[in-house]
This record gives sequence, C-alpha cells and structure tokens, in this order.
Amino acid sequence: MKKILLGANYYPEDWDENLIDFDIENMKKCHFNVVRIAEFAWKKMEPSENEYSFDWLHKVVDKMHEAGIGVILGTPTATPPSWLYKKHPDIAMLSPTGVRTSHGGRRHCCSSNPIYREYSRKIVERMAEEFGSDPGVIGWQIDNEIYHWEPGCCCSYCMDNFHAWLREKYGSVEAINSAWNLNLFSQAYDEIEDIPAPFNAWHNPHIKLEWNLSQSNNHKSFVHMQAEIIKAHSAAPVGTDTMPVNGFDYRELNAPLDVAQFNHYDTDLTRPAMWMDYMRNFSKIPFWNTETQACWNGSTSPGHSLMGEGFVYMNTWLPVMLGGGGNLYWLWRTHWAGHELMHGAVMDTSGRFTYANGEIVKAAREFEQLEDILCATKVKSDTALMFSSLNWNIHKSQQISNAIPDDTGFVNEFYQKLLGAGIHPAVIDGREPLDDYKLLITPSAYSLEEGNLKERITRFVENGGVWVVGPLSDIRTSIGTKYKNSPYGFLEELTGAQLSYIIPHDDGSITLANEQGEELKGRGIFELFDDGDFEPLLSVADGHSALVGKHASFVKKVGQGYVIFLGTLPEDRELGRIFSKASELACAEIYKVSDGAMITKREGDGRTLYIAAALKGKACEWRTDGSWRNLVSGELVSGSISLAPYEIAVLERADAERIE
Amino acid sequence: MKKILLGANYYPEDWDENLIDFDIENMKKCHFNVVRIAEFAWKKMEPSENEYSFDWLHKVVDKMHEAGIGVILGTPTATPPSWLYKKHPDIAMLSPTGVRTSHGGRRHCCSSNPIYREYSRKIVERMAEEFGSDPGVIGWQIDNEIYHWEPGCCCSYCMDNFHAWLREKYGSVEAINSAWNLNLFSQAYDEIEDIPAPFNAWHNPHIKLEWNLSQSNNHKSFVHMQAEIIKAHSAAPVGTDTMPVNGFDYRELNAPLDVAQFNHYDTDLTRPAMWMDYMRNFSKIPFWNTETQACWNGSTSPGHSLMGEGFVYMNTWLPVMLGGGGNLYWLWRTHWAGHELMHGAVMDTSGRFTYANGEIVKAAREFEQLEDILCATKVKSDTALMFSSLNWNIHKSQQISNAIPDDTGFVNEFYQKLLGAGIHPAVIDGREPLDDYKLLITPSAYSLEEGNLKERITRFVENGGVWVVGPLSDIRTSIGTKYKNSPYGFLEELTGAQLSYIIPHDDGSITLANEQGEELKGRGIFELFDDGDFEPLLSVADGHSALVGKHASFVKKVGQGYVIFLGTLPEDRELGRIFSKASELACAEIYKVSDGAMITKREGDGRTLYIAAALKGKACEWRTDGSWRNLVSGELVSGSISLAPYEIAVLERADAERIE
Amino acid sequence: MKKILLGANYYPEDWDENLIDFDIENMKKCHFNVVRIAEFAWKKMEPSENEYSFDWLHKVVDKMHEAGIGVILGTPTATPPSWLYKKHPDIAMLSPTGVRTSHGGRRHCCSSNPIYREYSRKIVERMAEEFGSDPGVIGWQIDNEIYHWEPGCCCSYCMDNFHAWLREKYGSVEAINSAWNLNLFSQAYDEIEDIPAPFNAWHNPHIKLEWNLSQSNNHKSFVHMQAEIIKAHSAAPVGTDTMPVNGFDYRELNAPLDVAQFNHYDTDLTRPAMWMDYMRNFSKIPFWNTETQACWNGSTSPGHSLMGEGFVYMNTWLPVMLGGGGNLYWLWRTHWAGHELMHGAVMDTSGRFTYANGEIVKAAREFEQLEDILCATKVKSDTALMFSSLNWNIHKSQQISNAIPDDTGFVNEFYQKLLGAGIHPAVIDGREPLDDYKLLITPSAYSLEEGNLKERITRFVENGGVWVVGPLSDIRTSIGTKYKNSPYGFLEELTGAQLSYIIPHDDGSITLANEQGEELKGRGIFELFDDGDFEPLLSVADGHSALVGKHASFVKKVGQGYVIFLGTLPEDRELGRIFSKASELACAEIYKVSDGAMITKREGDGRTLYIAAALKGKACEWRTDGSWRNLVSGELVSGSISLAPYEIAVLERADAERIE
Repeated sequence: MKKILLGANYYPEDWDENLIDFDIENMKKCHFNVVRIAEFAWKKMEPSENEYSFDWLHKVVDKMHEAGIGVILGTPTATPPSWLYKKHPDIAMLSPTGVRTSHGGRRHCCSSNPIYREYSRKIVERMAEEFGSDPGVIGWQIDNEIYHWEPGCCCSYCMDNFHAWLREKYGSVEAINSAWNLNLFSQAYDEIEDIPAPFNAWHNPHIKLEWNLSQSNNHKSFVHMQAEIIKAHSAAPVGTDTMPVNGFDYRELNAPLDVAQFNHYDTDLTRPAMWMDYMRNFSKIPFWNTETQACWNGSTSPGHSLMGEGFVYMNTWLPVMLGGGGNLYWLWRTHWAGHELMHGAVMDTSGRFTYANGEIVKAAREFEQLEDILCATKVKSDTALMFSSLNWNIHKSQQISNAIPDDTGFVNEFYQKLLGAGIHPAVIDGREPLDDYKLLITPSAYSLEEGNLKERITRFVENGGVWVVGPLSDIRTSIGTKYKNSPYGFLEELTGAQLSYIIPHDDGSITLANEQGEELKGRGIFELFDDGDFEPLLSVADGHSALVGKHASFVKKVGQGYVIFLGTLPEDRELGRIFSKASELACAEIYKVSDGAMITKREGDGRTLYIAAALKGKACEWRTDGSWRNLVSGELVSGSISLAPYEIAVLERADAERIE
Repeated sequence: MKKILLGANYYPEDWDENLIDFDIENMKKCHFNVVRIAEFAWKKMEPSENEYSFDWLHKVVDKMHEAGIGVILGTPTATPPSWLYKKHPDIAMLSPTGVRTSHGGRRHCCSSNPIYREYSRKIVERMAEEFGSDPGVIGWQIDNEIYHWEPGCCCSYCMDNFHAWLREKYGSVEAINSAWNLNLFSQAYDEIEDIPAPFNAWHNPHIKLEWNLSQSNNHKSFVHMQAEIIKAHSAAPVGTDTMPVNGFDYRELNAPLDVAQFNHYDTDLTRPAMWMDYMRNFSKIPFWNTETQACWNGSTSPGHSLMGEGFVYMNTWLPVMLGGGGNLYWLWRTHWAGHELMHGAVMDTSGRFTYANGEIVKAAREFEQLEDILCATKVKSDTALMFSSLNWNIHKSQQISNAIPDDTGFVNEFYQKLLGAGIHPAVIDGREPLDDYKLLITPSAYSLEEGNLKERITRFVENGGVWVVGPLSDIRTSIGTKYKNSPYGFLEELTGAQLSYIIPHDDGSITLANEQGEELKGRGIFELFDDGDFEPLLSVADGHSALVGKHASFVKKVGQGYVIFLGTLPEDRELGRIFSKASELACAEIYKVSDGAMITKREGDGRTLYIAAALKGKACEWRTDGSWRNLVSGELVSGSISLAPYEIAVLERADAERIE
Repeated sequence: MKKILLGANYYPEDWDENLIDFDIENMKKCHFNVVRIAEFAWKKMEPSENEYSFDWLHKVVDKMHEAGIGVILGTPTATPPSWLYKKHPDIAMLSPTGVRTSHGGRRHCCSSNPIYREYSRKIVERMAEEFGSDPGVIGWQIDNEIYHWEPGCCCSYCMDNFHAWLREKYGSVEAINSAWNLNLFSQAYDEIEDIPAPFNAWHNPHIKLEWNLSQSNNHKSFVHMQAEIIKAHSAAPVGTDTMPVNGFDYRELNAPLDVAQFNHYDTDLTRPAMWMDYMRNFSKIPFWNTETQACWNGSTSPGHSLMGEGFVYMNTWLPVMLGGGGNLYWLWRTHWAGHELMHGAVMDTSGRFTYANGEIVKAAREFEQLEDILCATKVKSDTALMFSSLNWNIHKSQQISNAIPDDTGFVNEFYQKLLGAGIHPAVIDGREPLDDYKLLITPSAYSLEEGNLKERITRFVENGGVWVVGPLSDIRTSIGTKYKNSPYGFLEELTGAQLSYIIPHDDGSITLANEQGEELKGRGIFELFDDGDFEPLLSVADGHSALVGKHASFVKKVGQGYVIFLGTLPEDRELGRIFSKASELACAEIYKVSDGAMITKREGDGRTLYIAAALKGKACEWRTDGSWRNLVSGELVSGSISLAPYEIAVLERADAERIE
C-alpha cells in the first residue's frame, strides 16, 4: 500500500451524467482519492437479458482516473433487475411461512438458487472482462453487505444445501440424532432429508446453530464464486463489504479474498474499533472501511443525528488508526429519491457540503501529511482478545444468562474494558496462531475446539503465556452441547481446579471479595470453584451459604505461564486490576490512560509510533514519560500526553530531541 | 341549518322492539333530537339474497319522527351479511401474505371488488327507494369509518387499481422509473403491471405513497358510488363518517357530499379541535360530529375511563363551538353482547343513565337556549394553518426526524401552540383559497405543489400577507422526492436566502439565541440558513462550530408582506413570541389568553360572538376589555373573562349596556 | 397415601445406560423415593411403526424398584416420532394463517386429529400392557402440559369439533345468532358450519370464549381417552401434569383421573400456592407437584436465577404444606444437549449437585420425620375463595378495566391479600359445594351461573354464611353477555340494593371514605351503589360530583347471614379490615400474622396441626397464645411464633406440656 484511501460511495446512475464534472471537482476539494461505484447498477449494465451497457460506466471510471481518483467497482448482484425477477420469481427468498420476498429492495434473492447464481456469474464475468485491466479500477467489491438475514431462506435449494451441509459435517442421520441428543422429545429423524428448517416450532439450539452456519455458507460460496471470476481477469484487490451481524464467519469469507471490507454506522466508536481490530487479521492488504456516515445514517428514518464536534474526524481516522488502508463515506451526495432518502452524505442533493466537511478535510490533509509513515508501519499488540464466528453463533442460539445483552456475548464489553485499562488488544479468531502474543483473553469463548485450541492454549501457557479465561469459556463443544464428564472441555484438566457451580445471576445478592478483602459485585454469571491449588483472586464473601468461600477468580501457574480464571464480570475497577495483574505477569504492554483514550502502537521501517486518540469525545490523557514528537501538530511534548475531545496525536519517541 | 342536533347512535336491531318507546322517552329526557341508525344492519334489511325487510326500520323511523327526533340513516356496507361472504369469499380483503380476512368483524371487504360493489349498490338503492322521501330521515351516512387500513388489500382488483392509478398519474413505466429514481437498487420495471404491492421487502417511499393514495382512492370511489345513488332518491344531506387516520384525503372524499361527518374518541380535546377546524372546510352545511364517547370508549378494552367533571360537557360543545351542526354520542345504550361490550354509552344495558348525564343535559339545554344565534353565525378566523392529505402521506412514508412523534408531523403541535398563543386558526387544505386570511402558517408542509401553491403563496405575500414557513416545508415534490437544484421548491427563490444545512437533531446540544440575545433550545430539526438579506430571529449561539452563526429563523419583507421562516420547533415561549410577531405584522386577530383557553369568533346576521372555553379543564382567563354579555349565564362581565375548568362563555359585546 | 413423595424427573433415554446406577446412588443421597420417566420417549419405545422396544424402560423401572424408588410413568404423546409426522404431516397443528407446525418441538400435534389419536391410543395401550401391573410403577402421567395453546389449531378436525361443540351447546344457528347478538355488525350466520375460527378479523368476545372452550375440550377428551386405556390395565393412580394457563378447565380435566398433577416454575410462591389450593379439590388422592425448579428454569433462556437461601426448601415444602402428596424437581440432571439446555437441575451434566442440594435434603429429611402425621391429616379452611375456568375464560375474552393485570382477574390478588390478612382460604371452583365454609369470597366472578350458584349462594347466606362479593362479580351470563334487566344476575334482587354506575377507573381522582371517615383510594374498577337499606362500608368522598355519596362497599344482613359487597380494590389496609370484618361476622378462622407468613391448618386422626411458613423469605410472626410443640425442631414455643426467612414450623397445641 502506497497511500491512504479517502473517498465516498457514488451512484452516478442516479444522476444526470453532466453532473460528474461538478462532482469530481468537489471531490478534489475534499482531497478524495477513491470512489466506490456500480454496486447496485445491474439494470443499468444489463437493461434486458444479454444486452449490456457499459459505456456510461467506462465514462465514469475514465473521468475518475483522469482526475486521480481510483475506482472500487462493485458487482451488482445484491439487486437483480426486475426482468430477471419476473422471468424467475423463484429466485426470491422464501420465508418460513411460505412468502416470497418481493422485488423493490435489495438482497432479496436467494444465494443458493442456481438460476440466480448463473445470471450473477454472467454479469460478473462481463464486468470483469470490461474492467479487469482498466487502470482506473483499483479494487473490487463483491455484492453488498451479504450475510445471513434472519430467519434466512427456506426454498428447496436452501433446504438441499442444509441437508448437504449436515451430511458433510455429521456423515449420517444417526450421527446427528446422537450428537444433538435427539432422543430428547422423540425428535430423532430417520433420514437427513426429514430435518426441517428450524421454524414454526420450538427447535433445539443445535439445529438453529447449523441452520445459521449453513445459510452463511451459501452466501460465502456465492461470494467466492464471484471472486474466482474477477481474479481471472483482474489483478486489483478483491473483497466484499460486510457488516458485523448474525454470526457470519468473516475469516472464511475473506480467506480467498484480498482485502477485508467493513461497513459501520456506529456512534459508539469502541464497537467498530473492535471489529476493525478483528477484520485486520483477514485482510491481505490493509483493510478498507468501505462505508460509514458522513453525517448521520437514515435508511428508513434517521438512526442518529448531529454528532459532537470532532466525531466525524475521529471516525474518519478510526480505520487508519487500526491498520486499515482507507475510509469511504456513504454516500457522496444524498439521494434525491428512492430508498434511504433520509441518509446524510458528504454533499446534499443540491450540491452543498454538509456540516462536517471541515472535519473531513482536516483528516484528509493529515492522511496526506502522514501517508508515508502510516503506510510503512503496522499495528502491533502483544495482547490478544479472542473472538470467533463459532462462539458468536453458539451465543445466539442459546442464552445462558439474561444479563449478557451484547450480541457477541461478553466480547465487546471486554474489549471496551481493556481499552479502559490501557490495553489495546489484537482481536483474533480462535483459528489464528497465538505465537505473537504474551497475553490471551477469551471471554464468552463457549467452545475452544476450533483449530486445536486446547493443545495450542496449553502450549501457549506452558511456554510462558498468560491466559485470562473469561466467563462462559470452554463450556460447550463445537456444536453447542455440554461436556458430560466435566463442565469444561479442558480447563479443569489444565488447572487441576474444580468447578462447584455455574449460576446465572444478576440481582446483586452475591458479594465478592478480592485478596485485599475489598468487597465488590459481579454481573451476569458466576462460575464458582472449590478451594484448590491456586491463588484465589475473587471469592464469595456474602450470599447464599452454599456459595460463600467459593472462588469466582483465581490465578494458577501452569508451566512457565499462568492461567487467570475469571468466572464473572466484576466491577470495572476490579476488572482493570485483574487485567493489570495479567499484563504484568505476561510482561505485556499496558498504557496508563484516563477514560476515553485509546493508544495504538505501530511498527515498521525501524520506527515505532503510537497513535493516541480521545476516542470517546472527552478530554483524556496518557500518563507517559520522556519526550515525544506529535507528527500531526509537529510539536514536541513530554511527560503526560493530554488530548482534547476527539483529538488524535501521532507520537514518536523524541527523547534525543530538545524540548523547544 | 335551523337547529343544533344532539343525539346518539342507536342500534334497535340489537334489542327487543318493545324497548323503543322506553328509549324514546329517555331520549326526550336528554333533550335529544337526532339518532343515527342502521349503519351495520344489512343482514336485518336483506336476510337472504334479494329478500328485503324494511318494516322494522320504517317503524323505528316513524316512531322517532313522531317524537320529533330526526333520523340519520346509515348504509350498512361496512358489514355485508354472511350469506354474501359465503357465496363470494373473494370479496374479503387479502393480506400481503395471502390471508383473507374472515367474516365476523366489519370493513373486512375490499372496496375494489366488483361483486361486493354490485351488492352494495343494490342494498343502497333499495334503502334509498324506501327512505329517500321519508320526512323522518334528515340525513344519510355512507358506510362507516372508511379509510385505508394498514396495510391495505392486495387482491387482484386492488392490484389492477394500483396499476391503473399509476398509469393515470405517470403515463408510462418509464416515467415512473424516472420519477422514483428506480435506477437505484436496479429497481426499474419493464411494465407497470410488474410493480408489486409495497410489502414483503424493503420498498421505497414513493411506491408506499402511491399505494396509500391508490388504496384511499378505492374507498373514495366506493363512497361516491353510494352518494350518487342516494342523491337520486333523497334531498337530505349525505355524508360519510370518518376518523382522522392514515392519510385519507377528506377534501376529495367530501367533495360530492353535503355534510362532513367526524368521529373521535380523544381525551385531549385540542386534537379533535384541529380536525373539526379542518373538516369544517369540506362541509356544505355545518359538519356533524357523528361519534364521540358519552363516558369512555372500549372497543376491545377500555381506552380511557372516568374523565374530570365537565369534560363531557365541553366535548359536547366542541363541534358546535367550531362551527359544527351537532353532536352524536356513541352509543345510546351499551351493547348487551357482541363487539365493543366495554364501551360506555348514554345509558347502560339495563336502562340507567351513566355518570355524565347531567353534563349532557346541561349542554343540550344551552343549545336550545342559544340555537338561533349559533345557527345564524359562522366561525371566522384571519389566520390559517395549512394541512393536507398529501403532506400527511409524505410524512407517513418517510421519517425525516425521529423527534416528530405526531402522525401529522408538526401540524397538530403547531395548532396547539397557536391556541396557547391566543390564535384560533382556520385549518385549511393546501388546495383551498388563501384570500380570507392575513396570516398563513405551514409546518411540515413537505410539498407546496398542490393547487398552484407556489404562485398563490407568492401572490399572498406580495399582496401583504404574512407567511410563517414552519419546519420541513417546501422540501419535497408532490411525490415525495427532493428538488435537485435547491433544498426548497421556491423558498430560496422567494426570499433570496440560502439554506446551509438541514439537520435532524434532538439532544439539546445546539443552543439558539433570539434577537434579544436570550438563549433557548429548538427541537426535532434544524434548518439553518447562511447570513442573508433578512432580519434573523433565531441564530445558533452554541454547538458544533460549523453551525454557529447560522440562522434557524428569520423574517424577510417580500412585496407588501413578510415571510417568516422557522426551521426548528423552539420552546413554547419563543414560538409564542414568533406567532405574536407574525400576527402583529399581519394585523391578524390574537387574544391575550392564559393556558387552556380557546377563543373562537363567530359572525353572522350582523352580530359578532366570541366563545371562550376552558378547553383543557383548568381555570384560565381571557384578558380583554370593555363589557360583555355572557349569553350562557346571561351575566354582564367586563375586563378580563375568567373561566372555571371546562366552563364555556358565549360572549357578545355589551359596551353600551350598563354593568349591573 | 402412606408417604410423601420426593424425587425428580429423569430422562434415561438421553444418557448412557451405565449411568443409571450412579444416578440411583445419588438419588438415595437426596432421600428421593420417586422418579418420573418416559414422558417424551415415544421414539425410543416405538422406533418405527409397530416395532416396540420396552426392554430399556423395564430395566430402568426395575432398577428403581429395587432401590425403593417408585416410578411415575409418562405417556409420550406430546412428542410423536418423526416417522409418524413424515407419514401423516396433517397431524401437526395448523395456524390461522395456514402454516403447519414443524417437527422438532413438542405438543405440536393436533389433539383432534383422528390419525394422531389412533397412534396415541396404540402406544398408550402398549405401555399400559407392559407396565400396567408392574409393582415399580406407582403412578401414571398422561401426555405433558396439555392445554389450549394460543391461538389453537384451525385444522378441519378442530373446525368440525368447534361446530359440533356449538351445536351441542346452543342447538341451532338461530340460537347462536340470538345468544351472541349477531344482529350486531350483520354477523348472523345461516349455518353453524359457516362460523369461522375467531382469527384474521376483529371477532366478538363470545366466539372467542367458545373457541377457547372448544379447543380445551379437544385436549380434555384426548387425555380422557388415554386414562380409560391405562385404567383398563393398571390400578396405579392416573393423572396429567398441567400448568395454570389459558383458561383450561382443570376440574373437568381431572374428573375421571385419580391424581391432580401440577407443574410450576414461579418464584413468587403465593401464585402456585393459590393454584395448589385450587388443584387440591380435583384430586382423589393428595395431588402431586410434578415439576418445579431445583435451581432455575431455562427453557430458551434463564427465566430466573439464583434464589435467596431457603427458597428451594420452602418451594419443596409448598405442595406438601397445601395438602399435596409430593414434589418432583424438573429435572434430575441438566440436559447435555438439545432443548432446555439452560435449565437448572438437581445435578449438573457432569454429575455434581447444584447449589440448593442442602435445602433439598433438609426438606427430604423433614418429610421422612413427619411423614405419618402429614399423611394422616388434611388441610382445612372455613373460608373459600372462588375461582373457575369459566370466569377465567370470560376475563380473557373481554377486558373490562385496563388496571387488572393478572390473567385470572382479581383472584390471585385477593388470594395474596387474604394471606396477608391472616386467612388461608380454600380455593374452590364455582361448581363445588359450599357446605364446608362459613365465609365465601368471589372476586372477578363474572358469571355466577355455574352449578346453580344463584340458589346455592342465596341458601348459603340465608343459612348464616357471609358472602364477600368482590368486584366484577355476577355481571355476566355464562357466555359472557350482560344481563338486560339489571347489571347483576341476582345481586340486586338478593340485597335490594341498586347499582348506580360501574366505572373503569385508575387515576386516583376518586377518594373513598370508610365508616370511620378515613380516606383511601380504590383501584381498577368502581361499582357504585345508590343509598339503600344497608350499612355502607366505603363511600365516595371526593371526585366527580355524580359519584359523591355513592357506595363502593356495603354490608347487608340477609337471612341469618351477610352479604358484603365490594366494588373496587381498596388499599391493602382497608381490604384487610373488610376481610377481618367478614371473618368476624362469619366466625371464621383468622390468624394474626405479620406480612409474609402463611398459616395452614390440618386435621386428621383426632389431631390438629398448623403449619406456619415464612413464605416470602422474610422474617415474620404469628401472634398466637398458649404453648405449641414445633414438630420440625421438636421445641416447645409459646405465645408468639417467630419465623426466620423461609422457616417452616409444624405446630401442635401443647398447652398441657410444660415449657422447658
């Protein structure tokens, strides 16, 4: 990567073609160097079957190229034209109650349907032939925000795929009956083909899990089919833009792709931060934030509105700060009609910049200023927070405690609290190697059966790593069932400790005490251990007498390393203390920050940078020492780094320099 | 009109026919002079196909007539008998998911269905023949509470009507594709017949708008068909009773009818007040309030309960005060079985008067006392608040700000705040003439393309009128799309001012200041203008720096008149100040009132009356001067008029009289 | 009954068969003497059509029997195997919108379907043949938690049954048209077969009532069919386990059965207490509490979590205290996979006891210690609270006041407040004899037409009984219609008093005063009487002037007894006062308790016991006198009985004994 991409999503098909010069002129004013186009323009490219029209698109790509603006080209498969829907109404998704989705929205067709696939293949191939070697095209986006919508499609092709998925995974109906415990409720099936979609009745968690995995798999293979076609014609990086929803497996999705593409419209930036830290792993080149609001979102009504000053600036920096290669706003110019009329944009319908333009240009200029060093360095962390699609799906198919609201379980909550404690973790999938890390944290990691984790974590710890076992970890097999011999897959075996009770609880009637005897509360779940050969960190001090004296957290030396078990979500202060202890035992990096600051570290070309950001829009500080050069302002600072709301400082050690 | 109608809705078909004398006797005790009957009695009139039975109904009409009680006769088309449903099950509405409405409720049949229409035509014709010249029948009600229920009917006839509606309005599918921007999402259709009902997918705002208009149109033509039949046989006034819901076009509905009929069960009387001020325009004779609660409503469960003392009295006066010709309670006697068993009435099932009978009789006596002067005068106002079905439908099909809860946008809120400021506005449709008014107020008037409004408003202002442009006005075409060259249709052109930003916002982080520098908050939306050749009224004093100094309200002289732009909903005190300023500039009438008072003016026969009402049930006053005769109490009052909770004073200038 | 049953529900079909010895060993540790098995194991018993497998089940029964653990055997008809569903998909329930329930849950088949019935008959017969004379089988459970699910099944068999039910009850369509007032809305039908299921439209309360009764009847006859088969082969008591939902008629359901079986997962124990007091009536032997949580429930997510110390102990005692013959926890061992994975149990998946094991064993030991005296005595009360399925169904089909949240109307609220006032009532169905009682209380007893109640209550009062007429009583016929001549069926006739108004109301604007002039509020409904020949207890002191001076409560001597009318729900203190007055007039037993205490009385074998329980988990007391022997602790106590949270004292008069 040679430069930071900054730009917007652009829909020239919706506007008079004469407007393009005006738009390019204004994009240049914004210092934009990329646009994403064509993602929904199938009808414009293929007005009727087998009649193609690409001149208009060539003209746009060429004009952009002339202006030095790269084009990310989207395949339009999310929006097949009405002539296709009319000829083959069965390509639309079928609801569990037998209703076909109507034409008029997007992503309404079934990724499993062979006719839809064939037409998709054709249009993608034609696009790839047309633009595969076009120098103006700097990347490809496949489809748009593909994932498994709830409840999914129940058409015959999806049912066939579901049954094939089950056969492939389990081998036989007997194996399924046995694995899912289908003696229960006399559910056992005689043939795999008898297994229904898990709707219109009270279904078990395992069929729901497999249904979701199977539906996701259909979409994944649809994307991969397109990637193969494009790659046959183009050397530009290929990806598919995704939103973090419904348990999609972003690792597998991105495996044969080049660039992870991420969309978000969050206003709590700690959430997309976690996702970007996660998506970074799956991208062969720095990932692209392909969509975020320039003002506010508004698909059917405004999801949010005017944000505090600096928010858009911070949001623009966010992907770059977290190792991404660029940011695109959705959208360049507010639609003048049709869907999402209420969505904010860089420019309004009549061609006037919207309120945050100053913030956009400020970020753009800083990217230009710092491009070389940003592109030459990569985000580094020696702490890893684990998250995986499998555990996300297990969490969604069975709710163990009512007090865990986040759709990823405790993962996002732990990420936020790690930032608060001064740790910027890598967020890694369970199938990723652990070698780069000193400290591993696994909250809500229901199953640790992915990628031989049991052996890998054991080795990690024995070789000196510190493993913080968050609540609800290692308690399920990979299909969401319980272990029969131990509440855990291997935790008891590894630590020699023994669980006494696991209790969903949230009314505050359990009081814990730490080693200093300070009392505190836990939240959501209590996994309590008997006394054992370990050092207790949190023990029940008051509550039901059967619980008093049991341990909700402990540390145990294992080999050269440590296991820190944490069986509840304690108050922030205490959680911070445990994170600090873990970090200390692991000799991992931890920053002394006040709330709201996020510190990320970058290395490359022999240089080490730290980007300090007032992520939450409040003034905060990083209590450090020595001298630093702030590459944004050019100023030298020393001692503590103070940040104004939404300020960003790109810092490099300057201890040899003299303070002016 | 010679008298004020007061009475109730009566269902003799549900009771022993011997009860009628008892009922009439008690109606007389209540001073009632009207009943509404027969609206749901199709089965009783036509027990089986082509066998008619009207004797029972003649008997009721005759008995009422003898007793001096006029009859409003309802056509029973809302409730076709089961033999018709059984013979033609396809007459029932079809849901978007393919489910037919079952027999057993009302308004379950499709107004587009030709078989249902034919049977409806026949029963209405027979009724008209029977009662067209009956002296006991003083009016007709067509069907009952007809409007476009969400989501509407998706049967083949409705789909045909929808396509015909689109063809009539747009001419061709190409015109629709272009007008709705159907390049977006590759939605463009090849034939109008391919356009689906806007369900079972994420559909655009324009198709939703047209669907609603088309569905309403089906009902409208069904009513008009009946009106034509009745008018061929009867000279009595014809109308159809309506509730203010779902964007129905009451102006077009009432165009060929004689008397607007309105039903309401509100307990916040400022809401039906607005509607009555609106319905008044569409009625050739004083409108009828055809339904309101005598106690509480209770269709499926009690919607509300015992109201404060005087509420029923005030609610009885409300239509009369606002220019209506009468009021009917729903219902005379609580049902003894069947639907709406929990609904209150004038009398309970066992024939005992309910708790508010004293209030009913008090209002009845005052109507008798004041009948001549009330009938001889008409409500007048020189201020007009604009409201139209088109803008109501645009509002419902696209939500621009989350902070505008009322289903009519800002309109009802402005109406209430105008009352609070001492202005009782006429409420006029956008297609009505502006000639009678000095001050025009248009909140949430998304589109000003109806009835040549651009030219008419321009002329109105140039000739000296004052136009208060409320928020969210002139920002959409008549099909809900945006203008491409300006955020406004003609506001910038008219004022020379230029919008900077339009921002949905509601967290209070924007502070405004008025000309005196007093700080205040706005709500819901901020339409902010650059500096211009106008006098600012409200400017951003604090908030995001891009906004500071922009203007949320300004006044601009245009020709002989003024445009007062108001781009937010400011705090009440400030809104009152702006209304006062506008009123002053317009030389329009404004009353000095404390909260809760509504003052309406009436003129006729060379006399001018004011009705002062403590509408909200709290003591309030009208600070006026001189001497007045209160025609209710007969007392002379002078100076300030004080009103007890729910008191009504009918006032005529008595400056020549001596205070006793 | 010779012993108190204590045990758990056990699913050996879900576990390795070698685990059974371990399980039995642990059951013995818990002092368990009963298990319930087989209820969902159809597939295991009949793996394919007509091939039966009972060896595994015999083995379990035999092992249990050897270990002294009795078996309650469940028929598996709630969960037909997939081969049956596959062969006859029409056996599944059909929704009102035409969707069949899928295989994969339970109770998804239609109890009316003749094919399902035939297969059910066969499997039950085979089970009865196999185990009818097995000494290890101590009882039978038919199906599981059968009742009328909302909205019910709309298949052709259910429709036929509905029409047959209507024909049987009303005789003719004319009778229905007349009884339901179907002149209203032109609903009247020409044939009974034209009457639809009451969905997909706005239907009247009477059709909803009959639909629910008819659906319940289908399930009832399905259970009775099974009972007949089992009884032909077995002398062990037969029942069906039920939950208190949806208006099911537990009296009729249990009529031909031997033992009422009740399941509950409540954490507010006053609710199941009421139900157990009710179910007791319908059981020929002491009823069984067949399911309750050993920890927490968790069908799809945890419904609740860790309870306060002693709760499980109290909950274990509850059925025994209220006359039941035993208690079974659901379930023995948490499932390792499949549905309800989150549900707590006596033992966790890996074979460790859960947190409340100490409480379970404590109760078990006390049952063993007190078995003889508990089995020899029966619960007695001279106060009866009336509750019936009919009124429950009327309440559910028409909501008269928004302020009555409980699904049984005021009944549960009155039960709780009676406990608070020191009265432990019997809870009797309207069809039960009144002879055993001195005080009768009937809140929300909409219809008093069951079992000749009018005559029976009249005789009860005339013979000296005291009848507290709670709000909303005697105001509906048995099909939910109103009386036309009086608001009441016979209350006015009996007392000579006359209702003025019945008003749904809940905003506190009505103030009442009692005879002492103390002011208080009522809630939910106000049934107000004119002055009459009675002693007023509560009268309107302030509010709407039409109401002031009317009476919301009065007492009237009738014959040798009294009628106490209560037309509102007054504040607790006042309600307690009225209950005390009623109890005093009736010479009925009342205990001086502080909040949280429940005192039940038992008689038998010439002995009288009182069980005092701190039911709500807070310390409380029973202010009594004399000396008592606490049979639990063996201690002598005198004067006031103090109870620690969740403590239970079994008390016998010991006045002759000397206090140690």
